[in-house]
Amino acid sequence: MVQSSKKIQVVPEPTIRRMPSYLAFAEGLLRKGQQFVSSTQIANYMNIDPTQVTKDLSYTAIVGKTRVGYEVKALVEVLSEFLGFTVMDNAFLVGAGSLGSALLHDSGLSHFGLNIVAAFDVNSSTIGKKINDIEVFHIDQFRDLSQEMNVIMGIITVPAENAQTVADLMVAWGIKAIWNFTPARIKVPDDIIVQNTTLYSNLAIIFNKLHNDRKETR
Amino acid sequence: MVQSSKKIQVVPEPTIRRMPSYLAFAEGLLRKGQQFVSSTQIANYMNIDPTQVTKDLSYTAIVGKTRVGYEVKALVEVLSEFLGFTVMDNAFLVGAGSLGSALLHDSGLSHFGLNIVAAFDVNSSTIGKKINDIEVFHIDQFRDLSQEMNVIMGIITVPAENAQTVADLMVAWGIKAIWNFTPARIKVPDDIIVQNTTLYSNLAIIFNKLHNDRKETR
Repeated sequence: MVQSSKKIQVVPEPTIRRMPSYLAFAEGLLRKGQQFVSSTQIANYMNIDPTQVTKDLSYTAIVGKTRVGYEVKALVEVLSEFLGFTVMDNAFLVGAGSLGSALLHDSGLSHFGLNIVAAFDVNSSTIGKKINDIEVFHIDQFRDLSQEMNVIMGIITVPAENAQTVADLMVAWGIKAIWNFTPARIKVPDDIIVQNTTLYSNLAIIFNKLHNDRKETR
Repeated sequence: MVQSSKKIQVVPEPTIRRMPSYLAFAEGLLRKGQQFVSSTQIANYMNIDPTQVTKDLSYTAIVGKTRVGYEVKALVEVLSEFLGFTVMDNAFLVGAGSLGSALLHDSGLSHFGLNIVAAFDVNSSTIGKKINDIEVFHIDQFRDLSQEMNVIMGIITVPAENAQTVADLMVAWGIKAIWNFTPARIKVPDDIIVQNTTLYSNLAIIFNKLHNDRKETR
């Protein structure tokens, strides 16, 4: 369980987005045997201002020491816990197609606290198979299993046009958070957490820059 | 090739991020046989203001018609081309571990214009294997192949501590854009495009909301 005596405060999303990078940097230093790290050193690595680093880390329980900075080992522990990577949350994945299978293959997710316990599809050629030891069930079995398996998160990797239907099902079955990998925008009640991650949006950003560069140099 | 008579202009990143959602919506309407769509209809779907939709779409070549709005078929074509999804770009992936294999399994990438032509690793148990028909080579073979295969993009899915080394190699071998899936921040020359995509950052955002909610209700 995450236990904290700190006052609960809303952490800005850009801060949370930077934290896995702080963690990766601290883990690297830990492996090299470095004992302390300054906010300036972290800032140089991140290409941001040291005051931003200090501000970001002030949301966690870590306290820097004058002159030496943050203890690297403590920083790794505090950030991992703060980011929720030390608590296992159970998830269902709906849509065991190309992207869905890709995510089922990524055991990095479980390293970061996400335990995908089952996958669902409507495609009879996939149902009954195991992908990276995770069984694929027919979508109709969703309800019974979610209660049984204490699942609080749903991952949507179906085609965009089916995303809302799947989201509605997930809400009905008691899922608290939805990780939506489709470009579709889904509508859910206010108390349900939705995170949109569209890989192809990132791809579009790269292409836009690449192809504009090419046009400019013509 | 992308050819355009339009003046080249910098498109804001939030606009590009919304465009794959516009595209998904338009593709859905096309399948349903709807001929025209208004900016208000798109705005409702996206939960944003109609003026934002009009502004976003003004970066593309599409022109809306009074009263009826945008032609759906034209919208799909214009957005696909604008986002670079109709041009195939060749890419190398370095790091055929868990996340790397996951991306190699995602044939959606090629649907959106990204053709991963080869993968690289240093792990002898992976080298020589094919993942989703893409061969895994030893990293030392990178240079020769990149010239041979007209590769302009590199995807980094190695452990964070090796990201900079791989990025340096990619730059040396003539790669123009890097898609970095590690939480490490990489430093490259100004003319190289870098896009950071950290799946685990999105996971951290969900966890932060989930666990704070739980604490609040205690």
